Amino acid sequence: MIDKVKIHIIKIGGQIIDREENLTLFIEQISQIKEPFILVHGGGKIASEISKKLGIQPRLVEGRRLTDSETLQIVIMVYAGLINKKIVALLQANQINAIGLSGADANTIPASKRIQPDIDFGFVGDIEKELINSSFLTDIIKKGYSPVFCPITHDGKGQLLNTNADTIASALARKLAHEFDVYLHFCFEKPGVLIDVNDEHSLIKEINKEKFIELKKQGILSDGIIPKIENALDAIESGVRQVSILQAENLNFFIKGINQNGTKIIS
Amino acid sequence: MIDKVKIHIIKIGGQIIDREENLTLFIEQISQIKEPFILVHGGGKIASEISKKLGIQPRLVEGRRLTDSETLQIVIMVYAGLINKKIVALLQANQINAIGLSGADANTIPASKRIQPDIDFGFVGDIEKELINSSFLTDIIKKGYSPVFCPITHDGKGQLLNTNADTIASALARKLAHEFDVYLHFCFEKPGVLIDVNDEHSLIKEINKEKFIELKKQGILSDGIIPKIENALDAIESGVRQVSILQAENLNFFIKGINQNGTKIIS
Repeated sequence: MIDKVKIHIIKIGGQIIDREENLTLFIEQISQIKEPFILVHGGGKIASEISKKLGIQPRLVEGRRLTDSETLQIVIMVYAGLINKKIVALLQANQINAIGLSGADANTIPASKRIQPDIDFGFVGDIEKELINSSFLTDIIKKGYSPVFCPITHDGKGQLLNTNADTIASALARKLAHEFDVYLHFCFEKPGVLIDVNDEHSLIKEINKEKFIELKKQGILSDGIIPKIENALDAIESGVRQVSILQAENLNFFIKGINQNGTKIIS
Repeated sequence: MIDKVKIHIIKIGGQIIDREENLTLFIEQISQIKEPFILVHGGGKIASEISKKLGIQPRLVEGRRLTDSETLQIVIMVYAGLINKKIVALLQANQINAIGLSGADANTIPASKRIQPDIDFGFVGDIEKELINSSFLTDIIKKGYSPVFCPITHDGKGQLLNTNADTIASALARKLAHEFDVYLHFCFEKPGVLIDVNDEHSLIKEINKEKFIELKKQGILSDGIIPKIENALDAIESGVRQVSILQAENLNFFIKGINQNGTKIIS
């Protein structure tokens, strides 16, 4: 049996993207990772800022952006254009041969427009997980390229769709687990999942399904972290080797095994 | 000797991009081309419109956009984001497996910031023609993907650059002529190069270098068409099989040999 090649799938968002100096430093750090990696980025606050400047008030319901057709144009511009190409250019400057992709490019991530009876989220896409073009991705990764995904997908009928970046990272990890030994990392501002969000020392080192149910029952988990853990558990159950939730600044140390601060999601 | 595979490199801009119904129709038409193709798109008026909405007055000198750092952000958003992904999604809807690229992606088009003593054009890139990543492009074309280029390149040091789309099309054609039998098409509003821009029947069917010099001397050529012809002549001299300047709506008929309306640039 031939060992599978190890790859990292790294999700970033929030403050890492919003502040240029953070992003530059983060890109320098991950460029030192020895194994191949895929980067998936969210949107940050830039889309909301540009929205406001253009006179379009961003509307959020339950923390999710309502994507009407004007908002869709803005998120395509900001996510697929501004942020994606900035990250690609920075990686290139660090000798990483990055290639920026939306889910429409090479039909990498087909999706369908979300139909929900209660709320119309607009042009929001749910990923057709089984249809992810893993042969294209496997091929370019093996040739030494690093894919950089923005959170935009498409329906195959000409419609681009706004899609949650955590979900993209998780879906890619699950699909690529057939071919690679996948380590999935959700990077954010906190050191991991915390019992008390205001106490960075209250880190939960490991979470499995039972623990997750227990933590939810106790009301310990914040609204924002629950879908992250759900995505992580899904990934582990689908053959992803390791999933971690950790601080972006610590990713490099974590991967090298120097510092294991972070929450590991285990089966 | 094995014959080289025939490919088309198609440059579009202006009204084809500005009007959604034109773009949709054009994409439907080129999706019927039997041979592999690369599409290179310009910016159109959308960047200027969004610029104005954001309170940034577009500045043009000799028909070229001055790209200061604010304007650069806008053209990255509009060219690499909005227009590029819209075209990719439309091609996908027509069963063409398109992949949108800037010159930073896969380091396809390295460039350097233009240094000019008289005018500072800002973040404008001149292509490092010999460094174009033709092995990546050759590989994906042979696998059935259609690259779609926006007019953004990078300097390899983290800086994205605004770059003329005609020049990108011509540079790609020249580099890929080593590997493929390249047919380069510059599509625009007119039926080709006209003796009288107001008379569509005054089409010049063929132009070679001598004819070009003569037409320039006579003052027949408009400012906009001169760099197009220069790019075309450069391409022909570098081994590109055929270069044509023609109306976008006629491209499909032209390629199929049904209607040869258009200007051919010959050696």
